[in-house]
Amino acid sequence: MDQRVSFITLAVRDLLASRRFFVDGLGWDPALDVPGEVLMFKVADKVVLSLWDAHAFEAEIGSPPTFGGVPPVALAHNCATKEGVDRVLETARRAGAETVSDAEEREWGGYSGYFADPDGFRWEIAYNSGAIGQDVLP
Amino acid sequence: MDQRVSFITLAVRDLLASRRFFVDGLGWDPALDVPGEVLMFKVADKVVLSLWDAHAFEAEIGSPPTFGGVPPVALAHNCATKEGVDRVLETARRAGAETVSDAEEREWGGYSGYFADPDGFRWEIAYNSGAIGQDVLP
Repeated sequence: MDQRVSFITLAVRDLLASRRFFVDGLGWDPALDVPGEVLMFKVADKVVLSLWDAHAFEAEIGSPPTFGGVPPVALAHNCATKEGVDRVLETARRAGAETVSDAEEREWGGYSGYFADPDGFRWEIAYNSGAIGQDVLP
Repeated sequence: MDQRVSFITLAVRDLLASRRFFVDGLGWDPALDVPGEVLMFKVADKVVLSLWDAHAFEAEIGSPPTFGGVPPVALAHNCATKEGVDRVLETARRAGAETVSDAEEREWGGYSGYFADPDGFRWEIAYNSGAIGQDVLP
């Protein structure tokens, strides 16, 4: 099996709220926008983030736990500078992210903070001076 | 905020089991392998899949629900042909994936099946003849 991920699919409860946050709030441009069904964004070369209506997700894949805790997945968005990290977290705050933690120095040598999107998925905004962190920058 | 995902981080319970499945079973090559802490794979240009020890994930991000259901996220691996989809699902089965569903025609026009990795994360193996499905192929 080739070592590739093509789509990252997240089950979302309210696509209108997702649209308000990612499109209106963060200024992202959808690659596909089917109201009530799916909202897709190109997030890397040959990688698409797909926000899929939770009912459709459950019908095909199964039901996520509905109570308590955070999703066991985080998506990271790396920045070239610490100032860039702070700016993106502020953008998320202004876009209406309810949970935003200020960035802090991490024991692995980086600097990062988190916000939660409308479905509680955690996004880590990170500066990572290590090789693997530099490799992912545009 | 730029429209980018740099890392996909999944909380995993047993990194040795992850290693057996992804490295020994699927033949993937780690970009970083710190036993007991993290196992990283490059899965697209400028995108890294990070399998992070669940205790460390919980200490920094919060605790996922521990009982019932499937994770609210799926990662898709797209193939150029339907035969390729069947082959990858068979590879996953041989690698020890416990839950593998045979591929089937989907109402959106594609052909796909799923397997669960050792932590229950669902991987969709898909053929998608649409523009967005073709765009993600290597």
